[in-house]
Amino acid sequence: MAEAKLRIGWIGTGVMGAAMAGHVLAAGHHVAIHTRTRAKAAALLERGASWAETPREAAEGADVAISIVGDPADVQATHLGPAGTLSAARRPRFIIDMTTSRPSLARRIHAEAKARGVGSVDAPVSGGDVGARNATLSIMVGGDEPDVEAVTPLLGLMGAIVVRQGGAGAGQHTKMVNQILIAATMMGVCEGLLYASRAGLDALRVIESVGAGAAGSWAISNLGPRIVRGDFEPGFAVEHFIKDLGIALEEARAMGLDLPALALAARLYERLREAGHGRLGTQSLALLLESMSAASPALATDGGIQ
Amino acid sequence: MAEAKLRIGWIGTGVMGAAMAGHVLAAGHHVAIHTRTRAKAAALLERGASWAETPREAAEGADVAISIVGDPADVQATHLGPAGTLSAARRPRFIIDMTTSRPSLARRIHAEAKARGVGSVDAPVSGGDVGARNATLSIMVGGDEPDVEAVTPLLGLMGAIVVRQGGAGAGQHTKMVNQILIAATMMGVCEGLLYASRAGLDALRVIESVGAGAAGSWAISNLGPRIVRGDFEPGFAVEHFIKDLGIALEEARAMGLDLPALALAARLYERLREAGHGRLGTQSLALLLESMSAASPALATDGGIQ
Repeated sequence: MAEAKLRIGWIGTGVMGAAMAGHVLAAGHHVAIHTRTRAKAAALLERGASWAETPREAAEGADVAISIVGDPADVQATHLGPAGTLSAARRPRFIIDMTTSRPSLARRIHAEAKARGVGSVDAPVSGGDVGARNATLSIMVGGDEPDVEAVTPLLGLMGAIVVRQGGAGAGQHTKMVNQILIAATMMGVCEGLLYASRAGLDALRVIESVGAGAAGSWAISNLGPRIVRGDFEPGFAVEHFIKDLGIALEEARAMGLDLPALALAARLYERLREAGHGRLGTQSLALLLESMSAASPALATDGGIQ
Repeated sequence: MAEAKLRIGWIGTGVMGAAMAGHVLAAGHHVAIHTRTRAKAAALLERGASWAETPREAAEGADVAISIVGDPADVQATHLGPAGTLSAARRPRFIIDMTTSRPSLARRIHAEAKARGVGSVDAPVSGGDVGARNATLSIMVGGDEPDVEAVTPLLGLMGAIVVRQGGAGAGQHTKMVNQILIAATMMGVCEGLLYASRAGLDALRVIESVGAGAAGSWAISNLGPRIVRGDFEPGFAVEHFIKDLGIALEEARAMGLDLPALALAARLYERLREAGHGRLGTQSLALLLESMSAASPALATDGGIQ
């Protein structure tokens, strides 16, 4: 499907979406773009994309309508709303939601799409702004096997690892696993580097020792040095991460799961947002931990599991 | 110092120590071994090491006395006790403690050694049984610069990454950072895989998607598949990890640090030991989380930071 020139409807041109749509455009496909703030689509429009006033207009007669928007409410409006993709007169053949969103919503959209003869795939991504720019994202895919097969070459334009994880919603569930891992790892990275700094160690040299062994992670090697340099620019913003952790917690509770580290991370990131750092990168958790230790040494280690 | 044949006193032949002493022996050095259970030294004695009845006897006239024993009390007895290395009539030129132990004890041993004209280096390791066998350990070194320089070729026989992190105790502090990272990451790995399994995903395929991106870690790639297969054999045993986390927590508190993820991990691993799993590998935390979720869905997410 990636070899022929396709008509793509694209909804959402944030940091991730703009870069990803750029790869689709660069492959020669026809891209009709809708996004909330038209200015954010300007560069893509200059490169030959056309403008659509609504998600429906972007999806009108398209082969594939792709969304990567803000939160589940946006996803729902984009596909199921009165001006959504599924309300197009000439419906798209496939819709793909790449937003990190609720697995249950992915299943609902899949059912509504299927009832209209449209294939629906959930395909959230991991790899951040860098992965989006370099088309090295890991794309976690859920949906019916033939549909996923049909859109995989298209997804391959945006990512290096495209894996079908199961039926509708499985991509979103896999992304939740991804965020659970990141949440815990980030706590460790921020606590470990705070310890290193208070112990008078050279934190960059510590990263050299610990990053290559059993304590190694993408986060310590990539975000660790940023923390040491005091660089808290997003990468991935705290307020978006809080949305993801909220979905993960709700889904976990619905499955009867008790995930204490995820719950702790959600509380800490909420406090970080309350401290005014919602737009910083996730690595800014280091700032909260530092302030907690300065203010009240024994606050957070009480309570919880005894 | 590694080119000449050295006289090495070696104290401690657990899983790690036996493999590491084997590399020193293979390089042609003379190794005198003491360990609590003589049977555990049998293979090394067959390969040409000699037996010593006490740490003092192992260190008698040695160039370097190396210890990798159980806990700080063992370290103290090994070097400062009445039959310890520093009580040798012909003292060793250097002592190296490779046990994961208290930074403050490393500084005390350094001071006592220095007062006797002996160089002292703390050099705990990361990389597990595999790293010990393959001599690919990361060795985190603290001590006076000339001493560290003198023993670095010897340490290079056991590890791939040998980095001086600072003065006496800095190796131990760096190892604490390493354990803080592992503690948090392991919680994420176990919670994430539990979520994956309850959501009906193929956990090995999930690891393929999440392991290569921003959620990637040594733990998810190496211990994740063991958890999925139900393989809880140690690697690194829960009871030893609890010792390390206890040291890290004490040191953190002494520095006025509040590290909530470390504290949570320490409580969870303590509960895992209470459940009878102290001798399993650290990845067996998955068993505790599973039982918590089966028994009492909302137990651990209450309390703690609000």
